[in-house]
Amino acid sequence: MTIAYDGTNYSGWQIQPRAISIQATLEDALRTFLRQDLHLIGAGRTDAGVHALGQVAHFSSQQEINTFRFMTSVNSLLPNEIRVLSIEKVSQEFHAQYSAVGKIYHYFLTVGENRDPFSRDYRFHLPYNVDLQLLHEAAQLVVGKHDFCAFANVSSEGVASYDSIRNIKRIELVCEGGSKMHLEFEGDGFLYKMVRNLVGTFLEVATKKRSLSDISEILLSRDRRRAGKTAPAHGLFLMQVLY
Amino acid sequence: MTIAYDGTNYSGWQIQPRAISIQATLEDALRTFLRQDLHLIGAGRTDAGVHALGQVAHFSSQQEINTFRFMTSVNSLLPNEIRVLSIEKVSQEFHAQYSAVGKIYHYFLTVGENRDPFSRDYRFHLPYNVDLQLLHEAAQLVVGKHDFCAFANVSSEGVASYDSIRNIKRIELVCEGGSKMHLEFEGDGFLYKMVRNLVGTFLEVATKKRSLSDISEILLSRDRRRAGKTAPAHGLFLMQVLY
Repeated sequence: MTIAYDGTNYSGWQIQPRAISIQATLEDALRTFLRQDLHLIGAGRTDAGVHALGQVAHFSSQQEINTFRFMTSVNSLLPNEIRVLSIEKVSQEFHAQYSAVGKIYHYFLTVGENRDPFSRDYRFHLPYNVDLQLLHEAAQLVVGKHDFCAFANVSSEGVASYDSIRNIKRIELVCEGGSKMHLEFEGDGFLYKMVRNLVGTFLEVATKKRSLSDISEILLSRDRRRAGKTAPAHGLFLMQVLY
Repeated sequence: MTIAYDGTNYSGWQIQPRAISIQATLEDALRTFLRQDLHLIGAGRTDAGVHALGQVAHFSSQQEINTFRFMTSVNSLLPNEIRVLSIEKVSQEFHAQYSAVGKIYHYFLTVGENRDPFSRDYRFHLPYNVDLQLLHEAAQLVVGKHDFCAFANVSSEGVASYDSIRNIKRIELVCEGGSKMHLEFEGDGFLYKMVRNLVGTFLEVATKKRSLSDISEILLSRDRRRAGKTAPAHGLFLMQVLY
């Protein structure tokens, strides 16, 4: 299944006790429609407030599923904030997380004096101007295969540091006109809070709180305390999972 | 002042007992900044859930106002859903409501099976296809000077029916690509719920629940019960007030 969701009012993708997650909400709708127990496996976890336009998840069922009826019924069981965009039958070997070879995230921003009342949950607003050339240059310094340990938060389940090498294929700064812009990240995978930590650090360079040369030093340090602040969740969208 | 707001969580523009209105929220911020009592007069009332990108309002003050400091301070006192976009000094003769010579409203729609989770508060979603040619033709039938009594709800303060002649200069159906579209209404003024009643009626024609010829009959009847359902508030935006 490909899924879009507005993460504003959810505790994130993953099921958690005493919180409403995207995963649990979807599983409830699927159980109601299919009248069977099932476990939904997502391509990746998104944090509270993070959105998706192309999350992917799989589940197993013995039933023959009519995709049109499935889409209509499951979507009618879901809150408006979560939509199943498509569903297709896959082989038993397919795994939403392990079969993924890459992911695309976009981080949406607005800059300048005036905050847009309609994007408050979907873009990070910086109430001052940023140097777009510096923002672009800072981003290019982390493109390629690096140990991103310094840009990864330790998740509640721990992150093994030997596993912190990732390959970022592309980071592109796209100006959308007016005060709107976004950063597109494409990579083989991203560590916990890595995109938001990268964005936070790039923005410190673009607002001249740090110099461009800090970026390589932070990468080499492998020390999370050296990198910048984590940019807020609400600007981040999981756009596509690549298989 | 020109003002933008997301009306989702408000009871509408106008101050009401036991409800949070845009007008009261703005007046509170202005009183705090200017340290004086004042009354804010808007160009028009918007209902609960209706949005604005170009509402206009005026107030009187003896103080010399530094517009830059005003914008920054008042916006910092306002919730993120309401933004003052600009402020300018006007003559004593100016009145936000009575000086207005026209208004532009847009009504935003999505059609088709899949509802977009990100526009649930900003577009009316029709879960089936509509005939765009019929939608366009229905709209053109009310352009011009007509008695719109049949398309006006009686407000809590009553609507004098001798005052129900309005001139609609333009209604344009704009396809935004994909399943997104909007109707642009420009007129010298609009009666209570008139835009939403027109949209609801046009959509009944576009989904073939009514015929095109019904439109003129409804206009001539001057009977609200003959027109279609009121389209929901959340698709409507006050875009511009013309002076």
